[in-house]
Amino acid sequence: VKRAVITGAGGFIGRHVLSPLSARGFEVVALSRSERALSEGTEWRAVDLLDAEATDRVFAQVQATHLLHLAWDTKPGEYWEAPENLDWVAASLRLLRSFRDHGGRRAVVAGTCAEYDWTEDCCDERTPLRPASLYGKSKNALRELFAAYARSSALSAAWGRVFFTYGPGERAERIVAAVARALDQETPIQCSHGLQVRDFLYVGDVAGAFASLLDGDAEGEFDIGSGRGIALRDLLLRLEERAGRSGIVRFGDAAEDRGPMKIVADPDRLRSELGWTPLTSLDEGLDRTLAWWRERGGAPEPQ
Amino acid sequence: VKRAVITGAGGFIGRHVLSPLSARGFEVVALSRSERALSEGTEWRAVDLLDAEATDRVFAQVQATHLLHLAWDTKPGEYWEAPENLDWVAASLRLLRSFRDHGGRRAVVAGTCAEYDWTEDCCDERTPLRPASLYGKSKNALRELFAAYARSSALSAAWGRVFFTYGPGERAERIVAAVARALDQETPIQCSHGLQVRDFLYVGDVAGAFASLLDGDAEGEFDIGSGRGIALRDLLLRLEERAGRSGIVRFGDAAEDRGPMKIVADPDRLRSELGWTPLTSLDEGLDRTLAWWRERGGAPEPQ
Repeated sequence: VKRAVITGAGGFIGRHVLSPLSARGFEVVALSRSERALSEGTEWRAVDLLDAEATDRVFAQVQATHLLHLAWDTKPGEYWEAPENLDWVAASLRLLRSFRDHGGRRAVVAGTCAEYDWTEDCCDERTPLRPASLYGKSKNALRELFAAYARSSALSAAWGRVFFTYGPGERAERIVAAVARALDQETPIQCSHGLQVRDFLYVGDVAGAFASLLDGDAEGEFDIGSGRGIALRDLLLRLEERAGRSGIVRFGDAAEDRGPMKIVADPDRLRSELGWTPLTSLDEGLDRTLAWWRERGGAPEPQ
Repeated sequence: VKRAVITGAGGFIGRHVLSPLSARGFEVVALSRSERALSEGTEWRAVDLLDAEATDRVFAQVQATHLLHLAWDTKPGEYWEAPENLDWVAASLRLLRSFRDHGGRRAVVAGTCAEYDWTEDCCDERTPLRPASLYGKSKNALRELFAAYARSSALSAAWGRVFFTYGPGERAERIVAAVARALDQETPIQCSHGLQVRDFLYVGDVAGAFASLLDGDAEGEFDIGSGRGIALRDLLLRLEERAGRSGIVRFGDAAEDRGPMKIVADPDRLRSELGWTPLTSLDEGLDRTLAWWRERGGAPEPQ
């Protein structure tokens, strides 16, 4: 029996990974800060992962063979330098220990493209892992400790670096979600110049990559992206076009994004070792994003 | 008022740092796993630093301005790859947060020469920080997170890398202590070939460096060593000579130490920026070590 614990299961990527994991034959135990029932047929457990004892009790009860650790504090605008990043490193180390001590065999943890050196366009295997932000440093430190601990404790381990994700369930403050809402409500929205090139991947494909990683035994680091860059401006104009609107999205002078002009993933390991490939075209992904916000009447989810 | 919390205050270095800190005008609050009274005139508090809530309560009560974090799990022979290293990273991150949140201003944390790349003789500013052991990786990750957190939270921060320390209070299993005991008991002891060159510094001088660091405002990384290497064999033979014995210490074929043939610190920053210099000669340090074991009748301390 493959029994998988998913942390951050109510989050943006987490909610999209539950079905693919069930489809792969996993018994899924979804952890979330609050009780949710986003996915029927899934066992949900409410736990504050910052509470070490409560977390250990869950792992003792669940007896999971697999762990997909997605939870982190990523409050838009604040998480780059938030001291809570340290709490999440500490919580992650504790839950990895707890998972392993209760019989866990395979763990996959979410990293970030912010682990890379962003002083120049990036990222591939030649790009140094030299993060600038506290968030990037925290993930990077966790990555190193996770790999070392996995080796010394015979835990099968993989690290999946998330690049730029969009789709249903994204927090309302983030750029694609904010523009989708503005388009739904026909309220003009001011953006940066949008010339920065990013690797945007539909959240379902990000989740699919994590499901594939968890279900395999490939170890080490995997960059999760399409491998193709798109200027943010072009993405948002395409979103406007799919919404059948015009003149809603307005571009300014400054790029508010962190990082260099171009951040594009190299998903070669995912492709060659796991046979993974994105299943959702940009237009499909954008249409689903718009539909999701339309159904909600533009209302953000409680956080 | 300078009010300093010392973690690991009952440990090898910790017990030697209390007097120098008091002499520098600090109110000292000594934390230890168990109630101790090794140093009169010092306020001791028993706390398990792996217990997040208990630790936070202590920092809330103490309202310290300064923190010297020495505590770690360093069980001889096991700590290099022990999973408990992760617990200590997590505990260290939590206590740094707790210290800062309760008004802390200046923190000094103990690092290790095992953060350095040990594939070649080392260590100076050209040596990469590329640890091989889980212990070294854990300290190295903590160092990076500590520096990033300090910058983002306006905490004054310094990191003191400990090299090779000897003197009264060392754990009985460690090499200098083991040989001092053997000499006291006139029991032959088998050592490695002893040709590896290490930078041994008397524990009182290591403690003096930490006291000086805590009392200053210099930031960043400081290597704590004499700057001079000595072959372990020569050190142990000198110890035997100071004990007035011969034929007790026996050298074998293998070096049981980790690391390259030569590990010597470059204490240039300590000297030039803090005016620190070792005060105890090798002979004095060895004599005090022998005297400490003689007084105890060779009995190890309970751990």
